[in-house]
Amino acid sequence: MKALVYQGPGAISWEEKPKPLIKEPTDSIIRILKTTICGTDLHIRKGDLPDVKEGTILGHEGVGIIEEVGSSVINFKKGDHVLISCITSCGKCEYCKMAMYSHCEKGGWILGNLIDGCQAEYVRIPFADNSLYPIPAGADEEALVMLSDILPTGFECGVLNGQVKPGDTIAIVGAGPIGMAALLTSQFYSPAVIIMIDMDDNRLNVAKTFGATHIINSSKENALEKVMSITNNKGVDTAIEAVGVPATFELCETLVGAGGHLANIGVHGKSVVLHMETLWSRNITITTRLVDTSTTPMLYKIVQSGKIDPKKLITHRFKLDQIIEAYDTFGNAGKEKALKVILNNEIK
Amino acid sequence: MKALVYQGPGAISWEEKPKPLIKEPTDSIIRILKTTICGTDLHIRKGDLPDVKEGTILGHEGVGIIEEVGSSVINFKKGDHVLISCITSCGKCEYCKMAMYSHCEKGGWILGNLIDGCQAEYVRIPFADNSLYPIPAGADEEALVMLSDILPTGFECGVLNGQVKPGDTIAIVGAGPIGMAALLTSQFYSPAVIIMIDMDDNRLNVAKTFGATHIINSSKENALEKVMSITNNKGVDTAIEAVGVPATFELCETLVGAGGHLANIGVHGKSVVLHMETLWSRNITITTRLVDTSTTPMLYKIVQSGKIDPKKLITHRFKLDQIIEAYDTFGNAGKEKALKVILNNEIK
Amino acid sequence: MKALVYQGPGAISWEEKPKPLIKEPTDSIIRILKTTICGTDLHIRKGDLPDVKEGTILGHEGVGIIEEVGSSVINFKKGDHVLISCITSCGKCEYCKMAMYSHCEKGGWILGNLIDGCQAEYVRIPFADNSLYPIPAGADEEALVMLSDILPTGFECGVLNGQVKPGDTIAIVGAGPIGMAALLTSQFYSPAVIIMIDMDDNRLNVAKTFGATHIINSSKENALEKVMSITNNKGVDTAIEAVGVPATFELCETLVGAGGHLANIGVHGKSVVLHMETLWSRNITITTRLVDTSTTPMLYKIVQSGKIDPKKLITHRFKLDQIIEAYDTFGNAGKEKALKVILNNEIK
Amino acid sequence: MKALVYQGPGAISWEEKPKPLIKEPTDSIIRILKTTICGTDLHIRKGDLPDVKEGTILGHEGVGIIEEVGSSVINFKKGDHVLISCITSCGKCEYCKMAMYSHCEKGGWILGNLIDGCQAEYVRIPFADNSLYPIPAGADEEALVMLSDILPTGFECGVLNGQVKPGDTIAIVGAGPIGMAALLTSQFYSPAVIIMIDMDDNRLNVAKTFGATHIINSSKENALEKVMSITNNKGVDTAIEAVGVPATFELCETLVGAGGHLANIGVHGKSVVLHMETLWSRNITITTRLVDTSTTPMLYKIVQSGKIDPKKLITHRFKLDQIIEAYDTFGNAGKEKALKVILNNEIK
Repeated sequence: MKALVYQGPGAISWEEKPKPLIKEPTDSIIRILKTTICGTDLHIRKGDLPDVKEGTILGHEGVGIIEEVGSSVINFKKGDHVLISCITSCGKCEYCKMAMYSHCEKGGWILGNLIDGCQAEYVRIPFADNSLYPIPAGADEEALVMLSDILPTGFECGVLNGQVKPGDTIAIVGAGPIGMAALLTSQFYSPAVIIMIDMDDNRLNVAKTFGATHIINSSKENALEKVMSITNNKGVDTAIEAVGVPATFELCETLVGAGGHLANIGVHGKSVVLHMETLWSRNITITTRLVDTSTTPMLYKIVQSGKIDPKKLITHRFKLDQIIEAYDTFGNAGKEKALKVILNNEIK
Repeated sequence: MKALVYQGPGAISWEEKPKPLIKEPTDSIIRILKTTICGTDLHIRKGDLPDVKEGTILGHEGVGIIEEVGSSVINFKKGDHVLISCITSCGKCEYCKMAMYSHCEKGGWILGNLIDGCQAEYVRIPFADNSLYPIPAGADEEALVMLSDILPTGFECGVLNGQVKPGDTIAIVGAGPIGMAALLTSQFYSPAVIIMIDMDDNRLNVAKTFGATHIINSSKENALEKVMSITNNKGVDTAIEAVGVPATFELCETLVGAGGHLANIGVHGKSVVLHMETLWSRNITITTRLVDTSTTPMLYKIVQSGKIDPKKLITHRFKLDQIIEAYDTFGNAGKEKALKVILNNEIK
Repeated sequence: MKALVYQGPGAISWEEKPKPLIKEPTDSIIRILKTTICGTDLHIRKGDLPDVKEGTILGHEGVGIIEEVGSSVINFKKGDHVLISCITSCGKCEYCKMAMYSHCEKGGWILGNLIDGCQAEYVRIPFADNSLYPIPAGADEEALVMLSDILPTGFECGVLNGQVKPGDTIAIVGAGPIGMAALLTSQFYSPAVIIMIDMDDNRLNVAKTFGATHIINSSKENALEKVMSITNNKGVDTAIEAVGVPATFELCETLVGAGGHLANIGVHGKSVVLHMETLWSRNITITTRLVDTSTTPMLYKIVQSGKIDPKKLITHRFKLDQIIEAYDTFGNAGKEKALKVILNNEIK
Repeated sequence: MKALVYQGPGAISWEEKPKPLIKEPTDSIIRILKTTICGTDLHIRKGDLPDVKEGTILGHEGVGIIEEVGSSVINFKKGDHVLISCITSCGKCEYCKMAMYSHCEKGGWILGNLIDGCQAEYVRIPFADNSLYPIPAGADEEALVMLSDILPTGFECGVLNGQVKPGDTIAIVGAGPIGMAALLTSQFYSPAVIIMIDMDDNRLNVAKTFGATHIINSSKENALEKVMSITNNKGVDTAIEAVGVPATFELCETLVGAGGHLANIGVHGKSVVLHMETLWSRNITITTRLVDTSTTPMLYKIVQSGKIDPKKLITHRFKLDQIIEAYDTFGNAGKEKALKVILNNEIK
């Protein structure tokens, strides 16, 4: 089969690889129908994640059809349509029993990281019963690809951890795909004011069409001053960090009001300065989280109900064998006005 | 009357001051029976809190008897015995309605800070109905003085915010009075393992008699290594910071396990380094809080039931007019083996 | 002034009464701008509430303008526009400190019940600081009248107690004004499926325009069978009882799925049969509540944001001096297709 | 092997049965070390549970040693000591993912009910990875048998569902083994007052040694009046029903104060009268639950820490082949002063 393979820092290739095989009774083999590229994949391509070995097939998102299941798989059979979760869960360890699948002792984020991933014609998914979700044959597969990672990440790390409530005032720092996912899913809890902060006017304008009530271009305006003006100097109930650099985290520290929440989604490579000399007395809660995808069934139900259209996040579509071109487009998101790209496996 | 007055950095005096008067219909005047000295009072004496003006009477803890109440006070009358809360609450603002009294728009921590406090024969307590608690005439007043500040602080900022649960493994960094209050009140939730960390052997030995299951002298042992050994390298469910300096906060960052809580109690004067490069994916919750004293009624009930004896925290007793000596003893806590000191007003 | 006065079972009159006066320093006098009639007022007229004495002015909802405040009122002054809460809260008792204002030791539901109410040109509101909410002068007063009782009742007793979550399937039994308030406010939490059950086709059709995804006329269809068909025989996550008779409560017992919630809003006059022989093992939570109006500030923010239009609930408008006619219309709701009626005080 | 077999209403026998075999890759075979008899087993013997077929081996509690595991079991191997949960969990269905194992689509309470149980020399435990818990070889096995059912039942259905908090006043109706388990585990949350109500003086006296602060013999005293006297007419924060008949449930309805919780543990065979005419406005929460055993790991940790000694519940010990005698003793609990009986498998 063909697959997108990491070839060391800066290098990826679309090449022939052996079709994966069942190794454990809990495994499944999936034929990919649609997949996508995550911001993390760009970091891997750059060489930022040394755990990813040369030769690894990348990708941790997608929908597909079951080709084969191991002997102890009971929830799925050949031919079933499935949604692949970016997080693999054994369902049997201490963390899985707490629904903290991100820290599964035999799983967690391993797809396209420690084992071969989804940017291929076929993928082996371990612990199929706990790591795949059934979808109807005629479902809107593009929308559901957004449920593999981006929607649960924005929702769990940003919205749930940020404890967004009806009537709240929230700020989301970062209008990339993950910030947009937080923007869309925050509306499940009906905040009254949603302030989107970024440095890209195009993304901010898109955010407005997605439900942001205020937008701030922090390269042109003083974000702190503007937020304080909107909030009568109280600060926001919840500040969601969706970038992953010290400057945006520290901006969030200043935006959050007394009793408020700072929910981190961003993947950070460096430490940040935490201003405890002011925060110690402000009754603040700061949270971090690697997505658990424990809310995937909830998100699936709400997507099916039509209350949210995750396809809004899709800006580009490619055939799977155009994936190198897709990486270039997605890697140049500002210029290309890209949010999420869809890759269709049309190879039969 | 006599009172302990802040005279500028480094200077306090025991001197004659006018007896306080009712100013507002919600006020009360209390004759102090017992009061104590807080670590914060030592900081004020040093000059660390520039908001405290020269001439201010210090102190924010105590029990007493109502001398007089304003015209709209309905919960209390002359002669009632009362517990004074360190936090003043108007009961009418947005924050008070959320029980976040620490941020009361007309109150919060003002006693012995922005207005005259309790280290005196008499004190004016504003918003009496919401800032005082009734106690029976024959109650154990020494025990109840611990309810003015130290027990709710350890409980709310450390134990409640740290979400201590039955069976948990917790670490408390700092075995001073506040850390000890967290140690005592954490046991309301029956954690299985309580690790106390300090650099003073005497305090650690006292902690053991208060219920710590493990003690670590971090000046002699590697606290991180020892905690990891106790927890099978998982880290603790809750790390409680009860010192207020960068080193102890950053130690807590390393002690807390995936999915765990870091509950700050310490008053910090400097920023700390937050290692988001490791914490971003560890599902951690960090909390800060100025005590609200919203749990005072709960704590009162549990103290009355005999499940906890807060008098254990009291190491020294003085007459109120020996308060300068008491400051010296408390200010030299290590050498004097002091935790809390009680000052008795025997002046009639 | 003129007022609507209860004259004993079956009798009400619109008559001259003395204008109310300040009695306590915490009181306020309000000139009513708009008020409405509650289902409970119809019960009072019938004589169902023996606590209501002859001569009492009815009504517990409305917006108005402050005429005068007592000496200890600090949040309001003459001329302020205010929203009146149906629940009076002293802000100083054990229950008020828990935000359980319904059980306030000096308040609770007393307006138009134990003391004179809002269906008058003027009303005395005790404990003004805690029982009134400020509104801007130019606000949409008709919408805000819905915040006095009906929206917090539907929201607190039905939606919050029912723990409605994104993606949930819920059933609301009773499409009267309270059921409709639950329907509108449940959508703050984005349930996927909302099933409205009633016996009045007009109300069910209105419910559909308010966001119900399914409607069932239980006089024509088997509600239990239809709900089981919609839910794949699992039952609903939350069943909200908004009628107050045994048959509807017992219907809810059968609709709720394992692990689900039965949230009662209805005012019951009789006991019901609780089928513990089946429910004991089904992990069900049943809740009752008299509205606390603790969420009024939250609801106000969300109404101001435009996410909900409570004016949808208003079907009829009258001048205040037409209130007898308004009672007749509202008391004949089925035929008149009435939900809420607005009474405008045009008397200057 | 030998086993205790249900032979139809009123009849049980100790007889030879085939040793169980692995049927599914997720199965395990356990050699029983210790088991016990549950009140439910007495109901089965009587014929009250028609789902139990003649020929079924009874029992759903015990500790043992793994004899053999199926091919996909990863948490256990031959020779491991294990605690058997009364609830079987597949770990893969919708309910298991919510930790509501009681409603597992392939498990739940099946042991000694729908499949052969633990009152035998050997037992087959399906879904071993999710239904067994590892214990060290030298553990106190008698204490751990109490973790199979009785402690999690009292804790989850009574204490957790009843939301017992520090300082609370609680009442437990029924001082049988389950009520005693609620009594012991309620103390994990440090309630200030624990009132035990029963009609057996011996059990009440035992309850006092287990931590009850008040005892009421409801056959001699008016339980409602006495509880109201203890609680200043407020009623209790939590009433725990641990009997399972209408009279005790309805007593709990009257005991619970405004804002309180009524947590049902009892297995009910009849409907009860729910006095909604008084309860509708009292902000009450009523819960039902079949134990999920989701707290078994938490309870194991707290038992290991020595904070609770579940062996206190054991009043009688027998050899496994004396089980018929043990049933008679346990079935005559009042006269025999029996709480829990332990059966030791000494057959090698």
